[in-house]
Amino acid sequence: MYSPLSKLEPKSTGIHLRRMSVQKKQRTLKNDHKPCVVWLTGLSGSGKSSTADALEKKLHALGYKTYTLDGDNVRHGLNNDLGFTDADRIENIRRVAEVAKLMVDAGLIVITAFISPFIAERKYARQIVAVDEFIEVFVDAPLGVCEARDPKGLYKKARSGQLENFTGIDSEYQKPKNPEIVLNSAKKDPEELADQVLEYLIPKTKL
Amino acid sequence: MYSPLSKLEPKSTGIHLRRMSVQKKQRTLKNDHKPCVVWLTGLSGSGKSSTADALEKKLHALGYKTYTLDGDNVRHGLNNDLGFTDADRIENIRRVAEVAKLMVDAGLIVITAFISPFIAERKYARQIVAVDEFIEVFVDAPLGVCEARDPKGLYKKARSGQLENFTGIDSEYQKPKNPEIVLNSAKKDPEELADQVLEYLIPKTKL
Repeated sequence: MYSPLSKLEPKSTGIHLRRMSVQKKQRTLKNDHKPCVVWLTGLSGSGKSSTADALEKKLHALGYKTYTLDGDNVRHGLNNDLGFTDADRIENIRRVAEVAKLMVDAGLIVITAFISPFIAERKYARQIVAVDEFIEVFVDAPLGVCEARDPKGLYKKARSGQLENFTGIDSEYQKPKNPEIVLNSAKKDPEELADQVLEYLIPKTKL
Repeated sequence: MYSPLSKLEPKSTGIHLRRMSVQKKQRTLKNDHKPCVVWLTGLSGSGKSSTADALEKKLHALGYKTYTLDGDNVRHGLNNDLGFTDADRIENIRRVAEVAKLMVDAGLIVITAFISPFIAERKYARQIVAVDEFIEVFVDAPLGVCEARDPKGLYKKARSGQLENFTGIDSEYQKPKNPEIVLNSAKKDPEELADQVLEYLIPKTKL
């Protein structure tokens, strides 16, 4: 399988990183909180987007600087050249991870809501930011629950063969082994799940 | 020439934009200023990065939320799969434009410092944000001045044939026709140029 994740050697050699005067440190001081990536992963229909939305609402109300990168939205712009082959799905997540990194550098708490089914791609997203800047959140609900919800009708399409490479049906979901947070989204609603993440985030992002 | 800029039809059909609760409007109110893209364009050595740095320092000191996307930096992460062919250079700028758009959505004043030699790519960057959110800044210095400065020794390499497709030497620079701001960077230093941009930006980003 083609994997851009293994290409850690940049094509653009001879380029030197330029150090700007305003750095993450200065932004952090102005924002009065540390930045980080809150990386939600889970099956389609597990509640990633709803949880992201509830979490961002709470963070914003508390004065945190946030942004949510959402699978549905990113694919309309940055990643509108990508389809759903394995290679394109991996490149999709690689770019999201890199944008999340830039936004962390910009001082934001970045919430990402992507199925991101492969351990390797989540590992990549983690390793490109600082150790304490990546919070992997497994939005955990059994396939049966997600399929019963089927908010976008995608499971139905996948089962009838209209959609290929659908995670959980004919494409693998690799569960996180050591996520910072596991959310039981079969039993709790998005507000409760957001509170659980918030409880972890507040001390974590304190200066 | 291959041009991803013409591919405005997304590959990812059947995807619906999800409206998050926290929108640009709410971030703008919290930040107490409007977001925008300050798109610096000009030859290598014209002073884009120095001007960007001076501008960001001033904006940050005044309490604005900013981020600078810099050619040198972006190529180490998001665009490390891209080289310097025409197609790759166009894709490089397309992604930068899309990231700038996401960051504007996040409420930031985004400064970009890329040669961005083609009218079409700058037009793309402009059209994907709102009309009043794009400020094209032509960092104007004659080729002779830029080449005499040659801060990275790139003109020397290009003249000796070690570097191909170098803007101004064997690749075209298409001057902006109606930029919001023209900076005379042969006559003024980065601090003065930054002040000139600031004068335009402050009323423009006022709520």
